[in-house]
Amino acid sequence: MVYGVLFGGVSYEHEISIVSAVALKEVLGTKIECFIFLDGARNFYLISSKDMRSNFFAKGQYKKCPKLVLKQNGFYMQGFLGEKQLNFSMLINLVHGGDGEDGKLASMLEFFNLPFIGPRVEACTVSMNKYFTKMFAKERGVKVLPYVFLDSHDNSALENLDYPLIAKPNHLGSSIGISVIHEPKDVAYGLDEVFEFDSQAIVEPFKAGVKEYNLAGCMGQDGEFIFSMIEEPTKKELLGFEEKYLDFGRTQTISKANISPHLELQMQNAFKKLYDPFFIGALIRCDFFVIDNEIYLNEINPIPGSLAHYLFENFSHVLESVRLPISQHIPITYHYINKIQKAK
Amino acid sequence: MVYGVLFGGVSYEHEISIVSAVALKEVLGTKIECFIFLDGARNFYLISSKDMRSNFFAKGQYKKCPKLVLKQNGFYMQGFLGEKQLNFSMLINLVHGGDGEDGKLASMLEFFNLPFIGPRVEACTVSMNKYFTKMFAKERGVKVLPYVFLDSHDNSALENLDYPLIAKPNHLGSSIGISVIHEPKDVAYGLDEVFEFDSQAIVEPFKAGVKEYNLAGCMGQDGEFIFSMIEEPTKKELLGFEEKYLDFGRTQTISKANISPHLELQMQNAFKKLYDPFFIGALIRCDFFVIDNEIYLNEINPIPGSLAHYLFENFSHVLESVRLPISQHIPITYHYINKIQKAK
Repeated sequence: MVYGVLFGGVSYEHEISIVSAVALKEVLGTKIECFIFLDGARNFYLISSKDMRSNFFAKGQYKKCPKLVLKQNGFYMQGFLGEKQLNFSMLINLVHGGDGEDGKLASMLEFFNLPFIGPRVEACTVSMNKYFTKMFAKERGVKVLPYVFLDSHDNSALENLDYPLIAKPNHLGSSIGISVIHEPKDVAYGLDEVFEFDSQAIVEPFKAGVKEYNLAGCMGQDGEFIFSMIEEPTKKELLGFEEKYLDFGRTQTISKANISPHLELQMQNAFKKLYDPFFIGALIRCDFFVIDNEIYLNEINPIPGSLAHYLFENFSHVLESVRLPISQHIPITYHYINKIQKAK
Repeated sequence: MVYGVLFGGVSYEHEISIVSAVALKEVLGTKIECFIFLDGARNFYLISSKDMRSNFFAKGQYKKCPKLVLKQNGFYMQGFLGEKQLNFSMLINLVHGGDGEDGKLASMLEFFNLPFIGPRVEACTVSMNKYFTKMFAKERGVKVLPYVFLDSHDNSALENLDYPLIAKPNHLGSSIGISVIHEPKDVAYGLDEVFEFDSQAIVEPFKAGVKEYNLAGCMGQDGEFIFSMIEEPTKKELLGFEEKYLDFGRTQTISKANISPHLELQMQNAFKKLYDPFFIGALIRCDFFVIDNEIYLNEINPIPGSLAHYLFENFSHVLESVRLPISQHIPITYHYINKIQKAK
């Protein structure tokens, strides 16, 4: 398999995506044929492997790279001798946050019929929107913490929740804009912080010191699930954006969390319920809380940092095994128009 | 307001979209500056107003029209003197079914920053996917009929439902692939029909003769809702694809359904709960069942046929009043990369 990696994007996680792509380069090496960068003006650029360092983007040097156009069946570069199609057999969508995880790029890649590893539109919607993640998990039989959805400063709905609370922008990942609210008098201030980033908020009880576990995986081509080892991420009260940022560049493997086989199986079963069939085509990471020996979904990362490669023993093999959704052929026959024309 | 109308698309409702656009032309006349057709090969074409008749597309004559490219801020036509941007102040997404209602075009229009009337990605996901519509309605406090979601021929989940059943492809509109199952021995055959169109099915009790009502509307720029009159659509046991097809071309207004003010208010309240904030930017139609004086959501049409203009007294005014979502500016600052570079 020859990979292309798509990264960048218009999102608060733009920089994280760059770091993530640099890390993936170290892991996959020459298996990546081309890097495609999406900048803040929504232009695509072809980046040489040798230029894959974060500074190259921060300094704007990428603007001298060849521009690319996304259209039928691929990315194309204009040259003196006409256009040239980029050569990869599988694209990896590594655009974290907006554009990558909100369905925009998934839509465009599907529209133009490119093969890619990453969440499709529906999967994006139910993982990017935290409120939708809650309703989706409940529907699929996976527990979540209680929550209140807010799309304005009307706080009356919070009255039924116990403090401390945690308020999050409804659509952002990587801890951006998150605010812990310790008592009622801090609500207005806490929500102001959230609404700076998003017009919608999700508020839930904040459990200090709760055990958190991450499980990555996908459905393989044979229909069987491939699971990573389960990680217990290191954290302070809250892993801030900066720690998460550095975390996305990880190239080291980690050691397995110390949990019971029973809990591990519970997490795998919850993962299956969430994944199949809506996440087919993606390598995702589900983050769970464990409270009183019960698991609760915290969030679904449909494009985890550097694809959570460090959780797998043989990451290359996993990537090659990801099952892709079958796209249905829809015939355009003009059957009805022709029939009605004839009847006239 | 000068409108562009986008229609066609790769979907079982391709022909319906053409008929719908022709009908909208009759209603809006010269307010529509350009018609943009998306064909089965996912090429965009600029269609002259005079060529807006269904035969022009069925015969493939559109292929001689100028091709268009969608990119930053608009649709562009290549000419001898360089490229020319199409001139409209608001695009109407009139692509029914796939491409238009599944989030693909919404994504592309948002990606390239075009102003448009139509559902955004999240709205598409919770209306195109009937299973997601059910979970979304429940979450928003709107009743739905009981249902079973199937993504394989495993029928065991149907055992708790009372016959007759109705099985529908999970993603298709306009009655395509719908099958009424009168007794258990017909299940396999009925599902076969559904799975011909979709790998997922939704099955629910079939209520022959149930009262059905349609209510269209949107949120206006002042934040107040604009509602249509409520229609009781004419129907036989099931309105088939052919009747629905003809129905999409309607240019006549209809008469108001004979229902109590109490029920009308209930429907408007349910509409509000569903619409705000996820459908902002779209003019939608919600179809309700009424059973024992209680309302149940049947489906949400995020792009109803010819925008359900016939349900409004002053359709032009409604179109001009649709509130659009506020798009947030996301700064790309390279703050973290620069900080880390400095620390090195």
